[in-house]
Amino acid sequence: MAQSIVTLTTDFGTADSYVAQMKGVILATNAAARIVDVTHSVPPQDVAQAARVLAEIVPAFPAGTIHVAVVDPGVGSRRRLLAAEAAGQRFLAPDNGLLASVFARWSPERICELVERRFWRDPVSATFHGRDILAPVAGHWSLGIDVAEFGPAVCRESLVSLPVSKPIRDNDGLIGRVEFADSFGNLVTNIAATDLPGTVAWITLGGHKINGLSRCYADVASGTVLALIGSSGRLEMAINGGSAANELNVVPGAEVRVTFGEPGT
Amino acid sequence: MAQSIVTLTTDFGTADSYVAQMKGVILATNAAARIVDVTHSVPPQDVAQAARVLAEIVPAFPAGTIHVAVVDPGVGSRRRLLAAEAAGQRFLAPDNGLLASVFARWSPERICELVERRFWRDPVSATFHGRDILAPVAGHWSLGIDVAEFGPAVCRESLVSLPVSKPIRDNDGLIGRVEFADSFGNLVTNIAATDLPGTVAWITLGGHKINGLSRCYADVASGTVLALIGSSGRLEMAINGGSAANELNVVPGAEVRVTFGEPGT
Amino acid sequence: MAQSIVTLTTDFGTADSYVAQMKGVILATNAAARIVDVTHSVPPQDVAQAARVLAEIVPAFPAGTIHVAVVDPGVGSRRRLLAAEAAGQRFLAPDNGLLASVFARWSPERICELVERRFWRDPVSATFHGRDILAPVAGHWSLGIDVAEFGPAVCRESLVSLPVSKPIRDNDGLIGRVEFADSFGNLVTNIAATDLPGTVAWITLGGHKINGLSRCYADVASGTVLALIGSSGRLEMAINGGSAANELNVVPGAEVRVTFGEPGT
Repeated sequence: MAQSIVTLTTDFGTADSYVAQMKGVILATNAAARIVDVTHSVPPQDVAQAARVLAEIVPAFPAGTIHVAVVDPGVGSRRRLLAAEAAGQRFLAPDNGLLASVFARWSPERICELVERRFWRDPVSATFHGRDILAPVAGHWSLGIDVAEFGPAVCRESLVSLPVSKPIRDNDGLIGRVEFADSFGNLVTNIAATDLPGTVAWITLGGHKINGLSRCYADVASGTVLALIGSSGRLEMAINGGSAANELNVVPGAEVRVTFGEPGT
Repeated sequence: MAQSIVTLTTDFGTADSYVAQMKGVILATNAAARIVDVTHSVPPQDVAQAARVLAEIVPAFPAGTIHVAVVDPGVGSRRRLLAAEAAGQRFLAPDNGLLASVFARWSPERICELVERRFWRDPVSATFHGRDILAPVAGHWSLGIDVAEFGPAVCRESLVSLPVSKPIRDNDGLIGRVEFADSFGNLVTNIAATDLPGTVAWITLGGHKINGLSRCYADVASGTVLALIGSSGRLEMAINGGSAANELNVVPGAEVRVTFGEPGT
Repeated sequence: MAQSIVTLTTDFGTADSYVAQMKGVILATNAAARIVDVTHSVPPQDVAQAARVLAEIVPAFPAGTIHVAVVDPGVGSRRRLLAAEAAGQRFLAPDNGLLASVFARWSPERICELVERRFWRDPVSATFHGRDILAPVAGHWSLGIDVAEFGPAVCRESLVSLPVSKPIRDNDGLIGRVEFADSFGNLVTNIAATDLPGTVAWITLGGHKINGLSRCYADVASGTVLALIGSSGRLEMAINGGSAANELNVVPGAEVRVTFGEPGT
C-alpha cells in the first residue's frame, strides 16, 4: 500500500489548474494512488530550492514512495526525463539537477531515462511533460511496473549536476552559508550537525555573535537570537517568538562562521 | 473506484476553514471519496475564471470524476443549484455560469436541479450551500446514486450563461484576446490551436511583434518573447525564463492579432 | 474507515517541506490514513486563531476524526503534548490553549499526556514534535490504539487556557467584538445566534448602523452592508459583492453593539 504514495513538488503555484491536471492523470492511471502535495511554491524555475526540498522530505516518507518533481524550464527541449531509485524511494524529474541533493546524500541505485511512450499520454504537449509524461509514469510505477520498463539505464556521471555549497574548515571552526529562510524566518545553513564534531563556542552571522548552541527555541528569552540544530539536522539561527530573517536582515547566501570551543569562553 | 474522485474549485482561499468543512462533509458521506483540490484561489466571486479552470481540468480526469465548484455570490437566494453530466464526468455548481465553459466544449447529457433535501445536511445554512448541499450531494453521488434522484431535469437553454469571448476572423488572420496570465506570467489567449488552420507569420500584442510559433519555451534564447500552443491547446505568449505578464506589461483583455502566412515573411 | 481521517492545522505555511514531512510520517505509520489539510496559514504562533479554526471544523467531520494541531512556540520545552477525545472526535496538540475553544463548546471525555515513546519517531528532534511525536501518534491512533496507551490521564483543570472573549448583555442588547475577517472580508463576531433571543433592531459597528438581520448576502443590493448569522452560527457583518473588512475599515477586536427590538424602529 505504501508504494502507492506519490508526492508532488513543483513551481506551479496553486492558483492555476496545472497541479490538478497532474493529479487527474495520476488518478486516471492508478485510482488508488495517494497523492501528497509537498509544495507548489518553489520560485519559478528555482531548481536548487526544489532539489533541497526533495532531500528534506526523504527521511519522512515510507519505502517505495514516488516523488515527482517538476521545475522544468527546459520542457520540450532535449533535456532528459529521469526515473531513479535511491534511499529505498523512487524519483521522477527532469535531468536538470533536481535530484542532485538527494543523490549527494543517498547514492542512486538505478537511474533510467524515460523513453517508452506506451506509458505516456498521447499526444504529449511540448510544454507540460509533468502532466503528459511524469504523471502517467508515476501512476504506472505505483502499480508495480519495474523502472527498467520505462527506458534504458543512465549512468550517474552523465547527469546534470548542481553546485553544492559545502562548509569550509579553517583553524578555528567552519565557514558556511545561510541556504534559506523558512516561513518562520529561521535561517537554515549548509552546516550539518555532523560537521560539528566538538562543542561550539560561538557563531557569527552578519555582525551578530551567538554564544553556543541551544536545544530548542524556548531555551532563550522571547526576542533573543539563538542557534540550534534544526529538524533537518542542520545548523540554523532563529529568534524565539520572532523572525530572524526579518530582524537580523540576513538573506540566503550570507556567511556563517562557527568557532569551535567551550561556549561562553 | 475512479468514480469516487471529487474535485473542489472555490474562491474560499486556504486561510479559513471553509474548504476543510466541505471536505469533512464529503468524507462523512463517503469515507472512501478521494478529494482533489483544484484551486481555492479564484478571485472572490469571479465566476468566469472558475468556469475556465473547470474546462481546463476535464481532459485530465478519469470518467466519473465529480467536480464541485463553489463561487456563489447568490448563495441563499433563488438561484438554482445544479448537478450535470458532460464529457463522461459529473459537475455540481450553482446556476450562475460556472459550467458555461465546460458546456461550450462538451454538451451536457443530463442536468438536474438539486431539490431533494434528503441528500442535504440539516439544517442548511443560508450562506454556505457548498458545505450543506453540494458537499453531501457529491458524497452521495460518489456512492452511486443516480443524478435523477437529486431533483428534476433542467433544460440547458434555461441556464444562466456567461459571455464567451471568441476570436474574430479578418482578412489577414485572427483577432483574439489575452484571457489570463498564469503564475509563470504566460499570457494565455482565447485562440485555440484549432483556430489556426494555416501557418502563422507573426503575432502582435501590445506593440510587440513575434515571428511565427515556437514549439517550447527553450526554443528561444533566455529572455526572448515567444508564442506557442500551450498545454491546454491555446495560443500563449511567454518569455523564456521570464514573466511575459510583467515584462510586456500586458493585462487580461489585451488584444492579440495573429497574421497567417509563412513565418519570417 | 471514517476513523482514519487525520486533519492538519498548522502555522507552517506551504512553501516549506514541514507539512509534507508530517504527512510522510503519518502515512509511514498508517498507509490508509486520509489526510485533510485544514489550513497551514495560521499566523506564526497565533494559538488563538488556530483554536478558533479547530472549533469551527468539528461539526463538519465524522465521528472518530483525528485533528492534529501544531502551533507550538514552546516546542522542546516542558510544555505537554496532549491527546484528547471530545465531541466524538479526537485531538492532538500541545498544551498551550490550542484545544480551548473546542473544549469550551464540547467538554472533553478523556485527556492524556503523550509520554509513551514507543509511539514516537526515534530520535525526536527538539524543534519539530509535530513530525516526530504528533504525526506518528496520529498514525497509531488511526489504527485503533486506545488513547490511554499514549500516556497518563490529565485533568482538564490542569490545562493551559486561553482567554475566551464573550459578549456582554446590557439593557438594550449585547456588546461583542469582531473576532476575525475571513478571506471574503466578512467580519465574524463572538456573538452566537443563540445569544440573540429576540429580534434585532439594529447593529452598530465602527460608526455604521445596520438595520436588522438579513438571511443571505444577496438579500441586499450589491455594495450594501448587512448583518446575518453566518455558516458557523455567529453574527457577521458583510457587504454584498464586496469586502466589509476593507470598506468599513474594521479590524479584529472592534466593538459590535446589538440592540434588541423590532427592525426598522
